[in-house]
Amino acid sequence: MANIFESLPTNLESEVFESILKTDNIELERIISKGHKSPESGWYDQEKNEWVMVMSGCATLSFEDKADVTLKAGDYITIPAHQKHKVAWTAPDSETIWLALFY
Amino acid sequence: MANIFESLPTNLESEVFESILKTDNIELERIISKGHKSPESGWYDQEKNEWVMVMSGCATLSFEDKADVTLKAGDYITIPAHQKHKVAWTAPDSETIWLALFY
Repeated sequence: MANIFESLPTNLESEVFESILKTDNIELERIISKGHKSPESGWYDQEKNEWVMVMSGCATLSFEDKADVTLKAGDYITIPAHQKHKVAWTAPDSETIWLALFY
Repeated sequence: MANIFESLPTNLESEVFESILKTDNIELERIISKGHKSPESGWYDQEKNEWVMVMSGCATLSFEDKADVTLKAGDYITIPAHQKHKVAWTAPDSETIWLALFY
């Protein structure tokens, strides 16, 4: 047993991606952000679909083809493969913990 | 966007299972318990692996082959296919919300 809110990395100079579960088809990750955002230019353009939920903290996602979405704890969204997106903002003073399922 | 803590079912006479995401290989479910537990006799014996996290509330899982595990918010555990288990207890006074990934 483990807890998604515990054993947080101490070095958060950059976002931290941790694999929770991985099979041939899927990967489940914990992502920890603290004030991080994607670079101004460029987008994430992923091969896989992503279902992502904010577990704690707050974050804003931007999309090439639709309006920004701000997520608080418990909010989840599906980002289809190749839907271009980026992290526009994450809370600066506390960790934002994400659970992301790539499938 | 949706929130895992919101739009809870009002009828909780029995546990409620809701599909969040389903593909040929995986299913992601929200499960809501309120004082429910599995029948005294018999075990869940599942074809698929299950990764399960308690999002809110508290619950105890029993296993045929190992000690009970009590889960609070953020705790997660993997139950391999065919590991016989049951829900021994869930908090009686508030909803226990589970996120379960069958893979």
